[in-house]
Amino acid sequence: MTTPTSTAPDFPALDPSALDDLAAKLSPGALTTDPDVIDAHSSDEALFCPREGAIALVRAASAEDVQEVMAFASAHRVPVVPQGARSGISGGANASPGAILLNVSKMKDVVAVNEAERLVTVQPGIINQDLKDHLAPFGLSYPPDPGSVALSSIGGNIATNAGGLCCVKYGVTRDYVRSLKVVLADGTITTLGPQTAKGVAGLDMRHLFIGSEGTLGIVVEATLRLVPALPEPFTAIATFPDERSGLQTVADFMAGGGVPSLFEFLDGASLRMLNDYGDFGLDGDAGAMLIMQVDDNPADAEAAMSTFTEVAQRCGALDVAYSDDPSDSAALITARRMIQPAYEKFANAHGGGQLLDDVCLPRTAVPEFCDRLAELRSSSGLEIALVAHAGDGNMHPSVFFDSGDAAETAKAEGVFAEIMRIGLELGGTITGEHGVGFLKRAWLPNELDEGSRRIQLAVKNALDPLGILNPGKMLAEI
Amino acid sequence: MTTPTSTAPDFPALDPSALDDLAAKLSPGALTTDPDVIDAHSSDEALFCPREGAIALVRAASAEDVQEVMAFASAHRVPVVPQGARSGISGGANASPGAILLNVSKMKDVVAVNEAERLVTVQPGIINQDLKDHLAPFGLSYPPDPGSVALSSIGGNIATNAGGLCCVKYGVTRDYVRSLKVVLADGTITTLGPQTAKGVAGLDMRHLFIGSEGTLGIVVEATLRLVPALPEPFTAIATFPDERSGLQTVADFMAGGGVPSLFEFLDGASLRMLNDYGDFGLDGDAGAMLIMQVDDNPADAEAAMSTFTEVAQRCGALDVAYSDDPSDSAALITARRMIQPAYEKFANAHGGGQLLDDVCLPRTAVPEFCDRLAELRSSSGLEIALVAHAGDGNMHPSVFFDSGDAAETAKAEGVFAEIMRIGLELGGTITGEHGVGFLKRAWLPNELDEGSRRIQLAVKNALDPLGILNPGKMLAEI
Repeated sequence: MTTPTSTAPDFPALDPSALDDLAAKLSPGALTTDPDVIDAHSSDEALFCPREGAIALVRAASAEDVQEVMAFASAHRVPVVPQGARSGISGGANASPGAILLNVSKMKDVVAVNEAERLVTVQPGIINQDLKDHLAPFGLSYPPDPGSVALSSIGGNIATNAGGLCCVKYGVTRDYVRSLKVVLADGTITTLGPQTAKGVAGLDMRHLFIGSEGTLGIVVEATLRLVPALPEPFTAIATFPDERSGLQTVADFMAGGGVPSLFEFLDGASLRMLNDYGDFGLDGDAGAMLIMQVDDNPADAEAAMSTFTEVAQRCGALDVAYSDDPSDSAALITARRMIQPAYEKFANAHGGGQLLDDVCLPRTAVPEFCDRLAELRSSSGLEIALVAHAGDGNMHPSVFFDSGDAAETAKAEGVFAEIMRIGLELGGTITGEHGVGFLKRAWLPNELDEGSRRIQLAVKNALDPLGILNPGKMLAEI
Repeated sequence: MTTPTSTAPDFPALDPSALDDLAAKLSPGALTTDPDVIDAHSSDEALFCPREGAIALVRAASAEDVQEVMAFASAHRVPVVPQGARSGISGGANASPGAILLNVSKMKDVVAVNEAERLVTVQPGIINQDLKDHLAPFGLSYPPDPGSVALSSIGGNIATNAGGLCCVKYGVTRDYVRSLKVVLADGTITTLGPQTAKGVAGLDMRHLFIGSEGTLGIVVEATLRLVPALPEPFTAIATFPDERSGLQTVADFMAGGGVPSLFEFLDGASLRMLNDYGDFGLDGDAGAMLIMQVDDNPADAEAAMSTFTEVAQRCGALDVAYSDDPSDSAALITARRMIQPAYEKFANAHGGGQLLDDVCLPRTAVPEFCDRLAELRSSSGLEIALVAHAGDGNMHPSVFFDSGDAAETAKAEGVFAEIMRIGLELGGTITGEHGVGFLKRAWLPNELDEGSRRIQLAVKNALDPLGILNPGKMLAEI
């Protein structure tokens, strides 16, 4: 396939010697123009997104470095692509023509843990799991757990308002951001949001910046709200003859007032790929699987397990098992954790291509969505497998294709788009937690009405009048 | 005292006949220019805020009415003051010169309850308690519970991101807003935010509008996230010889991992006023009181009650009592519910004036804050009483004064301002949940840094280029 070209606005050519002036103002060695190094930092994990044209990489060591880069970028009208761990899958961290890649992954300190206030202040580059590990000895938890928890940074989590598996009970990144230090387009540093539990003084710029994908400014420090250490969960696992019976179990359990801390769904195709990847004790006939966790106190959790068993059996479960032993829990969710390697094995055996989508639906629309996926699988001839955060309607279908076959690749891209169209038709959104980035920018106008598009652009233009912050990405086509 | 004049921008004079044209486009009888009716709708519950100069009142019956008013206001550059129940206490709903008062309190329908998705869609005028009552038969709860729960409307709660007593566990209004229908300055109607549990498609305009106090647009419909019916709480009440011992109890209980669903503090002055108001079985020697609720399952709640008792006694409590009987709980928190009438009795006996403040602090700064209040009481000679949402550091001190005495009134205003100054000095915010409105607009620049002020104004100007939405209020002096 041909990689689409970026529609970033035209920027004036920069006199290369100007970069020397910038380098002199930054931490020693922070700026490089080595083409190989730039190339190695020019993309995240997304497929089909342009990654060409960066002119420099700055590995910022401090907020001051970030300020210098933005002041320089404003003075010379140079585009800037903010980056963290580059673990995203929407191309939001990909290079664009003429851009400085501004990477904050070296800024990864825990600045302070405040046990009395249940707060932690961190630099943006810290990896989510590293933060969790740091907090454990304090008896404190930072709940958000994107699938990329071991790879992705807090700054990136904030930039995309990352979700994860625990959202069904604990919410998303936004729900844990107390205040942000942000560098604006012109290099000004500002603090957004109070350090207090409540606060309504002025427009809430903090929440505007969360999820803005580097288009409004660059987070250089975040103070996050914590909760007491999460209890060890009880885990239940159930297999079903088909998807409908599994999804009915989700609907009935939630309608009964269930409050799971994790509620994952795997479809038949996913189970076949898992069985092909390893022995997880899965019934070869199973057409769907649910994994459900509850982390209430033992009595309530035990009751929830019984209710779940009863509901699942009434809906036709082939098998239900649960455990209150944390080591058993870990074993029970192994299948869920191995789904991406299993997908990769399947993909590698079928031409290597996998496009992972991320639509979020009203929970009640999920059964219809699964039927539509089955139709798509049939009409396209491509394999599609679904894993879902079923408790909150967040669907992650993967489309598999032969990446060496241009026609099949184009077909896979069409299926990927069709999944978004179906998501919108069923009352959902084109992205629940992965973000728009480059990958879905052409689809954003299909989700937003005219007024919403207009005020988003107005806000973007007001905060970044030169259009230098991550151009060609999220809002580029609305 | 002299009421300060508004600094709203100058607007061109409107030909009065133009209002006839507007009236003809609205629901029958929606617009009135009757001076008495306008006057009766020209203020909320705030003191010391201007309320003069409105030219018309529109009681909108529909989103279309709101659109017509805004289209008219944009065409003629007429200021518009959005209003709901006018129960606010910051003057945010007060009239301003030349303004149309746009009241949405007649738009109070429950549009839909979606049990399967745990969502409710409402018009903005519905009273918070009426919504709670409507949801009870469905076994669903909308947690936010501002002190004005029986008076204030959901639209106003969204406009100020209202908090309340349950925030320490359940968060604030923002945490329950799924999507909004909003009318923009030019009359365009737009939907902000998806209906789904997760969603990151574009800039989050929904969160920008929450807490924007009618300065960016007018909410005409809201879809709110619900939770399963909240359990009946266990309630504990403890009295202490002084404030320090009560506040130490708060700190120690929270540090031990406690998760109360309500945690209220009353100081000695409040207790004296309560004892003067009625017999609540309060020890006359008590210098502070805590009321704490836990709504976990009975076993956990019982354990929390024991822990609380132990902590309170160790800190020197005079008396601790608790109950798991909901009717006892209601009796135990009667004193808390009666605090405002008790304040009013005291105020009425001392010249009638009461200024209620609303600073939010880091929880650990509360003891220092109480010491500062004692100093202020002493230096000013004015009575000051404190009730606080102690679990989240939200302080509501009241300053009492003789409203017929200009010098004492001015002194009270000075004390009110000094309380905000102390709040900022201790790392807090000038408003935890009441909003800025007119009352605190001059103080907002003291809280926000230069960058934050600049981008707030940039956003305001981008979305309301004519400056017609609630001028002279929140952002008028930054």
